[in-house]
Amino acid sequence: MGVISNDKPVDTRIYFDNAATTSLAPEVLEAMLPYLSTHFGNPSSIYSYGRETRLAVENARKTVAKILHAKPGEIFFTSCGTESNNTAITASIRDLGCTHIITSPIEHHAVLHTVEYYSMQNAVSLGFVKLKEDGHVDYNDLEAQLQQKSSEGVKCLVTLMHANNEIGTLLSIKKVGELCQKYGAIFHSDCVQTVGHYPIDLSNLHVHFISASGHKFHGPKGTGILYVNENISIKPFIHGGGQERNMRAGTENVYGIVGFAKALEMATAHYEEDSAYIKDMKSYMAQQLKSNIPGIDINGDEIGGLYTVLSVCFPKTEKAEFLLMNLDINNICVSGGSACSSGADIGSHVMKALNKTDKWITIRFSFSKYNTKSEVDRVLTKLKVLL
Amino acid sequence: MGVISNDKPVDTRIYFDNAATTSLAPEVLEAMLPYLSTHFGNPSSIYSYGRETRLAVENARKTVAKILHAKPGEIFFTSCGTESNNTAITASIRDLGCTHIITSPIEHHAVLHTVEYYSMQNAVSLGFVKLKEDGHVDYNDLEAQLQQKSSEGVKCLVTLMHANNEIGTLLSIKKVGELCQKYGAIFHSDCVQTVGHYPIDLSNLHVHFISASGHKFHGPKGTGILYVNENISIKPFIHGGGQERNMRAGTENVYGIVGFAKALEMATAHYEEDSAYIKDMKSYMAQQLKSNIPGIDINGDEIGGLYTVLSVCFPKTEKAEFLLMNLDINNICVSGGSACSSGADIGSHVMKALNKTDKWITIRFSFSKYNTKSEVDRVLTKLKVLL
Repeated sequence: MGVISNDKPVDTRIYFDNAATTSLAPEVLEAMLPYLSTHFGNPSSIYSYGRETRLAVENARKTVAKILHAKPGEIFFTSCGTESNNTAITASIRDLGCTHIITSPIEHHAVLHTVEYYSMQNAVSLGFVKLKEDGHVDYNDLEAQLQQKSSEGVKCLVTLMHANNEIGTLLSIKKVGELCQKYGAIFHSDCVQTVGHYPIDLSNLHVHFISASGHKFHGPKGTGILYVNENISIKPFIHGGGQERNMRAGTENVYGIVGFAKALEMATAHYEEDSAYIKDMKSYMAQQLKSNIPGIDINGDEIGGLYTVLSVCFPKTEKAEFLLMNLDINNICVSGGSACSSGADIGSHVMKALNKTDKWITIRFSFSKYNTKSEVDRVLTKLKVLL
Repeated sequence: MGVISNDKPVDTRIYFDNAATTSLAPEVLEAMLPYLSTHFGNPSSIYSYGRETRLAVENARKTVAKILHAKPGEIFFTSCGTESNNTAITASIRDLGCTHIITSPIEHHAVLHTVEYYSMQNAVSLGFVKLKEDGHVDYNDLEAQLQQKSSEGVKCLVTLMHANNEIGTLLSIKKVGELCQKYGAIFHSDCVQTVGHYPIDLSNLHVHFISASGHKFHGPKGTGILYVNENISIKPFIHGGGQERNMRAGTENVYGIVGFAKALEMATAHYEEDSAYIKDMKSYMAQQLKSNIPGIDINGDEIGGLYTVLSVCFPKTEKAEFLLMNLDINNICVSGGSACSSGADIGSHVMKALNKTDKWITIRFSFSKYNTKSEVDRVLTKLKVLL
């Protein structure tokens, strides 16, 4: 990346873990800085300092709403994607009467652990949709499950992520939304890997909730949004002051909200070029891997999946078992699964669900517009040595 | 304050609403900036970028723990004081078996609305402690209520704020902690107005939970902590990844966490001088008000209360009813109650509980080390004209 770090003159690290988190775009930091210095008023205060930050928050909301083709009143700022997911699932059970949840075993833990929590509290029953070998949802099975529950008079929440964070398979929100509409189910989609990476037109999708996170598209950490379709009415997850129109208490993280909107604006302004550039880099790396490293397997849907993620299974050998560590020693940042579980030695629940743990070592390479093909070449050179 | 704003050469505004939020200290921003640029790794990632941010988070935790005389394992980073309050109250009911909550009618809405929510869900019963005329808790009444519930075998949560945000009355955490210990109750204290403003020695207080918020002591918005005493074991409020030792899911807001710790370090390093300086300013303003504005009344405990807050009742006259607005027009930022309710026209629940709404207009002046006596003089001059 060639960025300057504090302790070394030049940072030669290659950062291929953009699905875990991204660097903050300098332009986003610039947009945030006034709200980290002079513009510090509490947006709930009625005087000048408060009005300027209130205006910044409401302008950010309008920006986000416009990009997602939603109404400003449908966008709520939260502290992260995880909080957004918790809010949507909690509200679906508590306020919308859902007593059964249909999800998949390869959801992010922010969804899986939340639905498991409510299931253990006996608040809901759980059903898992069948997955195809590449991780795609089996839509026929989903419809069969919805039909069954609907015929029993059971109200369902369907929570399925737009793109899987480990292997990049994409869901058709449109298709799932139509199924949910047909059977009267509530539909939540964790869009943490896709908001800022794909054009999303919420006016055209039958989805009740989507979650997004700023730090996945060069925005600030500690920021997220929850989209709540205007046709449903829910209560807050975090109680207190009247912020976010009584939907999310706590003094607004003004600079974070401003940064979220600016990052989303930047991420979508040059969507065509940026996505083509990254897609080309991913495809180049996939081809080079297949040509140079024997016995590998690409996880998920290589062509139709998330263009930022390339998940690769390497045959399990003594050398491959140390691949992640050796890449790190060589200043190459990649991950074994998602960041959230990479510290723990328990392996990826996604790869387990897809029966790909026994004979394979999985490495996720994930790219941003700041990466280059020359970095791909350097990684390939290292891989050939390390395997 | 003489700070430079983006749109005017010199900002002549006087900011006397530091209990609502404070400006970010420049040194705090400086400490945050590396984590807003080069040091962006996900702390859950195992490679170099991740290790440097993991280290920053753990160093911040140690700093905060040391200042509060707690153990690092007792400090959990959250997105705000409100989230911390919600977590403590939720966990007390769900995980610690509390079925009755004793609180006061002048708590912050982050506590009041949360306990009301659980009461309406029939998860708990609620008891309100008697208050003295100046807003102090009647400790005899608290003991009587605890004794009664204890004799009935009912496990209580006592949630009482350390300092009231509107009128500044202080609670003896030590005394309430001892009462809670005597009667086997769980004790949570919202310390949002006192952490960073008073030395707090948690090793010496029988408190199970305290909440704090970074933006109340020149730290960043969107940051908070929850202290959880090591002798109790609770489950997370926000479910998902294993962050914060499985206690608070969501990618860590690294720069916010770093900023929280730096701000707390700065706020407590010069506690003696800073608090004496602010106390002197408050006392000067109180004296000048009493000498110059007829018929005023100081709310709370003028001498023994929070040194940052001066809450004043002005006799309700036609001119006084427009005081807040007229002060704003004159570039003076103060508030009528707390910021969280100032947008709404419903008035302060604190002043209502103390029966001080009928004949009075309440203005809260709240100070920081960046304010000056010359600003106090300018405000007094304006007040004489406006009343």
